[in-house]
Amino acid sequence: MPEVKFYYFHVKVAGEAIRMLLAYGSQEFEDIRLSDEEWAALKPTMPFGQLPVLEIDGKKYAQSIAISRYLGRKYGLAGKDIEEDFQIDQVMDFFGDLRTRAIALFHEEDEANKAKIQKEYEKNYYPVTLKKLNEIITENNGHLALGKLTWADFVFAGIYDCLRVLLKIPDIDEQFPNFKKLQKSVLSIPKVKAYCDKAPKADW
Amino acid sequence: MPEVKFYYFHVKVAGEAIRMLLAYGSQEFEDIRLSDEEWAALKPTMPFGQLPVLEIDGKKYAQSIAISRYLGRKYGLAGKDIEEDFQIDQVMDFFGDLRTRAIALFHEEDEANKAKIQKEYEKNYYPVTLKKLNEIITENNGHLALGKLTWADFVFAGIYDCLRVLLKIPDIDEQFPNFKKLQKSVLSIPKVKAYCDKAPKADW
Repeated sequence: MPEVKFYYFHVKVAGEAIRMLLAYGSQEFEDIRLSDEEWAALKPTMPFGQLPVLEIDGKKYAQSIAISRYLGRKYGLAGKDIEEDFQIDQVMDFFGDLRTRAIALFHEEDEANKAKIQKEYEKNYYPVTLKKLNEIITENNGHLALGKLTWADFVFAGIYDCLRVLLKIPDIDEQFPNFKKLQKSVLSIPKVKAYCDKAPKADW
Repeated sequence: MPEVKFYYFHVKVAGEAIRMLLAYGSQEFEDIRLSDEEWAALKPTMPFGQLPVLEIDGKKYAQSIAISRYLGRKYGLAGKDIEEDFQIDQVMDFFGDLRTRAIALFHEEDEANKAKIQKEYEKNYYPVTLKKLNEIITENNGHLALGKLTWADFVFAGIYDCLRVLLKIPDIDEQFPNFKKLQKSVLSIPKVKAYCDKAPKADW
């Protein structure tokens, strides 16, 4: 078995999908959760100077979605051809817009502007996007694509606790019941559950 | 040959890579460039209610990067295995962050805030990101990944004229000479050049 290290912080956010995919693939890995000080020292050695980074036998892999797709294809969680892979990628890109915008808003430092954008998103962006996403899950038998479990579901399940905090929609689980259900279905896969049960607890 | 339609606006931005990939693949297509009024009428019929959309024999494909990857794999512009595909995806995700942030800034309506973010990006984000991207192209023999032409180069070449406007770095071509060179190398591929020569001209 290859020697695998996973570098990230002690949060789920963009890293949990990768941890869960590794667990699904029965791949043992060193789950390295860096402090800010440790990260400052390591940053220059990492591709793009960013985390998360997966290291397999000394070779470094960066960018969380690219890594998730790679592991998904490795562990039989991708499509059977380029048509099916496209179906997954299409939904991941749509979801990626939501993730990117929510995270950018979280990092907005100007409080007045942050409140303004939040209001605008709550009015014009979140409702239509979340409704669409909820519909997609209905159409796909409780999953994001292909009507079955794919690596995209891991990406969603891994970041959902974070997303819920970022979006600030108190009744999101009631309004869009598919989200929590999809997350639960991934977290209850026995190998994934075994990882989650013994992993250090992070809120989001 | 399948019947292909490509729906977008009369701009290059996120659509030109797809047009060029279709040309590279010798795929004839109807290059539909919608006015805002035409788009408003079509929007409800499109996946995710967004453009660009590619239609192949009546089946619709959305999300520009997902489409580019799909066409890239179809036309022999992807990796030979999941390791190589990962190398492409990793750089595409890194580049995607730049693209997303620059476009979000363009759409920022508060002029004072826009100027503030532009200044902050010019100081802390653009220089390090563009330097890294320029290095990646040097390391990859004038390309973005695998040391050879891939679909990622088409994505870059297609959006570069737009990016140059968005980033507002007057001497970007001199500071990072690989960018213009990479774009030129894609645009000079005979089938791509033939498309560009006869396509309606758009500035960005």
